Amino acid sequence: MTPVKIGLLGLGTVGGGTVNVLRRNAEEICRRAGREIIVSKASARDLSRARICDTSGIELVQDPFDIVNDPEIQIVVELIGGDGIARELVLQALENGKHVVTANKALIALHGNSIFAKASEKGVMVAFEPAVAGGIPIIKAVREGLAGNRIEWLAGIINGTCNYILTEMLDKRRDFHDVLQEAQTLGYAESDPTFDVEGIDAAHKLTILASIAFGIPLQFDKVYIEGIARITRIDVAYAEELGYRIKLLGIARRTKEGVELRVHPTLIPHRRLIANVDGVMNAVVVKGDAAGPTLYYGAGAGAEPTASSVVADLVDVVRTLTGDPENRVPHLAFQPGAISAIPILPIDAVHTAYYLRLSAEDRPGVLADVTRILAGHNISIEAIIQKEALTEETFVPVILLTQQVLERELNAAIREIEALDCINRPVKRIRVETLG
Amino acid sequence: MTPVKIGLLGLGTVGGGTVNVLRRNAEEICRRAGREIIVSKASARDLSRARICDTSGIELVQDPFDIVNDPEIQIVVELIGGDGIARELVLQALENGKHVVTANKALIALHGNSIFAKASEKGVMVAFEPAVAGGIPIIKAVREGLAGNRIEWLAGIINGTCNYILTEMLDKRRDFHDVLQEAQTLGYAESDPTFDVEGIDAAHKLTILASIAFGIPLQFDKVYIEGIARITRIDVAYAEELGYRIKLLGIARRTKEGVELRVHPTLIPHRRLIANVDGVMNAVVVKGDAAGPTLYYGAGAGAEPTASSVVADLVDVVRTLTGDPENRVPHLAFQPGAISAIPILPIDAVHTAYYLRLSAEDRPGVLADVTRILAGHNISIEAIIQKEALTEETFVPVILLTQQVLERELNAAIREIEALDCINRPVKRIRVETLG
Repeated sequence: MTPVKIGLLGLGTVGGGTVNVLRRNAEEICRRAGREIIVSKASARDLSRARICDTSGIELVQDPFDIVNDPEIQIVVELIGGDGIARELVLQALENGKHVVTANKALIALHGNSIFAKASEKGVMVAFEPAVAGGIPIIKAVREGLAGNRIEWLAGIINGTCNYILTEMLDKRRDFHDVLQEAQTLGYAESDPTFDVEGIDAAHKLTILASIAFGIPLQFDKVYIEGIARITRIDVAYAEELGYRIKLLGIARRTKEGVELRVHPTLIPHRRLIANVDGVMNAVVVKGDAAGPTLYYGAGAGAEPTASSVVADLVDVVRTLTGDPENRVPHLAFQPGAISAIPILPIDAVHTAYYLRLSAEDRPGVLADVTRILAGHNISIEAIIQKEALTEETFVPVILLTQQVLERELNAAIREIEALDCINRPVKRIRVETLG
Repeated sequence: MTPVKIGLLGLGTVGGGTVNVLRRNAEEICRRAGREIIVSKASARDLSRARICDTSGIELVQDPFDIVNDPEIQIVVELIGGDGIARELVLQALENGKHVVTANKALIALHGNSIFAKASEKGVMVAFEPAVAGGIPIIKAVREGLAGNRIEWLAGIINGTCNYILTEMLDKRRDFHDVLQEAQTLGYAESDPTFDVEGIDAAHKLTILASIAFGIPLQFDKVYIEGIARITRIDVAYAEELGYRIKLLGIARRTKEGVELRVHPTLIPHRRLIANVDGVMNAVVVKGDAAGPTLYYGAGAGAEPTASSVVADLVDVVRTLTGDPENRVPHLAFQPGAISAIPILPIDAVHTAYYLRLSAEDRPGVLADVTRILAGHNISIEAIIQKEALTEETFVPVILLTQQVLERELNAAIREIEALDCINRPVKRIRVETLG
């Protein structure tokens, strides 16, 4: 199959991330899509600054219309942002019969209805997974994964800046303005933070989610929007005392009377999973009548998480470019001819950490024996708890947490430990994963 | 468009759930898929027991081969389970050129390679979203949503029975066998719990997830499997003391040497989101090189959650039955002609609970005034905290949590409260959502 040529409008953070991901994972992406995806052109206002990625083989242009009017380009990726020139470019690309992938939530929330109408007229696709919640495939989950459900409501932490600020306010007992300033220094907040902290960015994303959840037009102007600037650390503390966390939520709920669309600070019981989504992370809970509540969590912004969604959309579009059954989603994700023969490892070739519970005699020198054996196998100890003896017990539990070690090595150490006179039972062993 | 006729093999819990969801949400599903989906035939071993759903209009048959050999049926939904007769039926359906949707994890894990080969040969699809993690669209997320990533590892709580048992062991300080017996009584565990508690069910699902994550063949026989039967409440308590929770995880990790595939009890730091997935719920963390970690959470079993995934797969297959652009996933999830005009509600028409912070004079009678006003608007109070006065302060914070109320009603009450002499500042109001 001939490669698919794409053009990037904008070569900033996400554009650079997209080029990097397409290059780094070219082989796997081709195995999934069934065709090679090649960035043939990219536009940047200031070409000298386009050094965020390896641009070799990519024709760099200053005028983005060079890309949307290039007959060789089949898919245009719009990463300029805003609803000015980006809108013109997208409409021109569609007019020219090109498919579009966009990360532009403002564009979709404000002008999606007319953009999709134009796309339908031209028989092309506009894909926008990267526009909502960065690397979380939430558009796909709601639009396809939950297609059997009548969706009742959804609620999401869909602005990382606000979530970072609220998390810091709770963890460090700091005030809003204090944390905001720091977030700006760290690059988590824009120098003009209005879009984020006033809830507008979240409202753009909520508009899109509500539309695909309920089958309603995009109606940004109807969203109730309240930001987090008035939240004080005192409220955060009182909420905690009452068993709640304060989060900026975008909420869309279907009622008998109509649809609620609202973005505002919200107390959530702290035992809910979503109440524990901290820092810049995003999460969306979707309540379907059949599936019940499902939750989707991940990075809501950043070069590579957003690029991850750009590429997923590219793969989806590429699959539709031919009508062959081979271009359906492959059963095992990768094309049948591209399945890998990489071996599956036996369990003793696995590296992991361990919890060990020993039953040891309650006398001096026992710990020394055990730790000497572990040291002999190069096994580092993370923590030891020695429990007190119950009355008349001469053997006591000793709990050890090890650092990462090859299981084969640990097995050898356990055999030696179990052979000690001061150990009266088999060592209990449970693996530990930090999932970090 | 003519309706699509499907046949159900098996009319037990999930079969009944599928019929119910297809009927209840028929209108929305048709708006999404662009075609009506009709259950024309269903098979059940004991037809007299097929009363779990409204079977009107469905031809009930005893011999499932009547369905896979019926030329009118385009999609066969296999809900029999196991790898005996189910395998024969699926292969026969494929041989006859029918698409297949299956909830059968054992079948896919053990015989998927040959089943997919047969499907490719015949140019039809085998969809298996319901086979892993019930209502969570995890197959779609990994296979399509993360298509741009080199997936590094994934780790999942993919057996609800084990997670329920481990949660109870922690919360109630009970022993494994004790909780297992109760789970059997409650219907959370089978009378023969081996498949669940010994980790075999989780290993089936892990086999499938690993295959679509890494592009490797299904290799169930290579999975290391260790169940939870040897976990004691003592280990659960020690783990907690060390800051960890014990979960049965299915882990697939790519290393330089090969792929780790293992199911075993695992200590996880309790601050990780997945460590807080409790009861019968499922969750999977997927670490992609671009997206970073993303997490997917929801019900892992049950009639309707599983039916949710069956229907999502049906909609996917139906969309491929024609090659028209109209049968792509619609931009806004629903077909362009089927967008709903349901109104968006103004914020004062919203029902929610509230956190209120008042600045009130520190004297008797103030709380009585405030609660009288709230009662006058039919607003119930969930909790009140009255803070002590700091030295020389005559006004103190009073925190109120209300129950659900119409926002318009609350606004009226707040106006009256703010008019009280004993209140010296505007009432601070934050909405509360239990997301229950």
